[in-house]
Amino acid sequence: MNKKPLIIVVSAPSGVGKTTVIQYLMKQRNDLVISTSATTRPPRRGEQNGIDYYFLSKEAFEEKIKNNEFVEYAQVHDDLYGTLYSEIEKHFHSGKDLILELDVQGMRSIKSKFPHVITIFMMPPSLKEMEFRLKNRGTESEEKIQKRLKRALEEMKLRTEFDYTIVNYEVEQSANDLNSIIHAEHLKSHRVEIHLE
Amino acid sequence: MNKKPLIIVVSAPSGVGKTTVIQYLMKQRNDLVISTSATTRPPRRGEQNGIDYYFLSKEAFEEKIKNNEFVEYAQVHDDLYGTLYSEIEKHFHSGKDLILELDVQGMRSIKSKFPHVITIFMMPPSLKEMEFRLKNRGTESEEKIQKRLKRALEEMKLRTEFDYTIVNYEVEQSANDLNSIIHAEHLKSHRVEIHLE
Repeated sequence: MNKKPLIIVVSAPSGVGKTTVIQYLMKQRNDLVISTSATTRPPRRGEQNGIDYYFLSKEAFEEKIKNNEFVEYAQVHDDLYGTLYSEIEKHFHSGKDLILELDVQGMRSIKSKFPHVITIFMMPPSLKEMEFRLKNRGTESEEKIQKRLKRALEEMKLRTEFDYTIVNYEVEQSANDLNSIIHAEHLKSHRVEIHLE
Repeated sequence: MNKKPLIIVVSAPSGVGKTTVIQYLMKQRNDLVISTSATTRPPRRGEQNGIDYYFLSKEAFEEKIKNNEFVEYAQVHDDLYGTLYSEIEKHFHSGKDLILELDVQGMRSIKSKFPHVITIFMMPPSLKEMEFRLKNRGTESEEKIQKRLKRALEEMKLRTEFDYTIVNYEVEQSANDLNSIIHAEHLKSHRVEIHLE
């Protein structure tokens, strides 16, 4: 029985804690990798090129769009974000499951190209909680936070487009939810190869 | 967030160890119930009416067929087996997930009436292992065992009709597989009710 690697899209409005949940699960399993996106936004403190993102100039990004090097890309606020085909190919033969952190648009694009992709939407327990987390992070202006909250509410209306919904009450529980989804998806009949003797 | 109860069909050729796996999981969770089937086959040693099966005469069973009291029923070898609507209704408002142990025909019937039913096929690691388990049980003649093995091979060809496939290498691992499937299915977006504040 071979294990076919999964492509898993996780979406969440900013401030929900998606990355924390994924990192938590990755500490427990060594068969998961996270796709590194390309972006035109400037690095935040501590972020490294090729690890957190591929940081590209606007010109370099647009050149890659022209050359069809992106599986998906989208403008979020004032910056471009995208997933390179090369990034997916890099992991495809490793046998590890690949997690992509994308927004709703990105999920739609990738699903149109990889129909078997597994899609998960992560929710905040409440909008109040989300606002608290964003303010606590302290990296953005009040105006930007309000813009994000408005956008979050719009995104949440689209969560039924995703296969699964995880409400992030608490990181350990959410990581356990994510783990069960991955485990169960590997047991889908079309993914289980049987060689009967 | 309310938990909508699931209806889960588990099928497996006889001798795979399906019941052992389900019983193992039920010892760990109190939010699962097993549907009790009706049958015309005589009780085996230790089996109790209303617990292991509803043991009915052929006449009583056929009367209930006529009255449309069965969600599904089928002849297996020389006996009739069926699931009564009353049995599903009994559990529906309890909030517990209901497991039905059915064959392929039974799965098809119940799926046509309850499209959101979750279907799981359990496989033996090999046919040799299955033959060994059947002989070890010692309740049936060699002829009946060969009949079951032939039937098992036919059923296994239909496993792709099921949502999930569990290969029963070992009871604890298979119970864990079943547990993850149930956990993940509760996270399907259409089952997650959200009340945003």
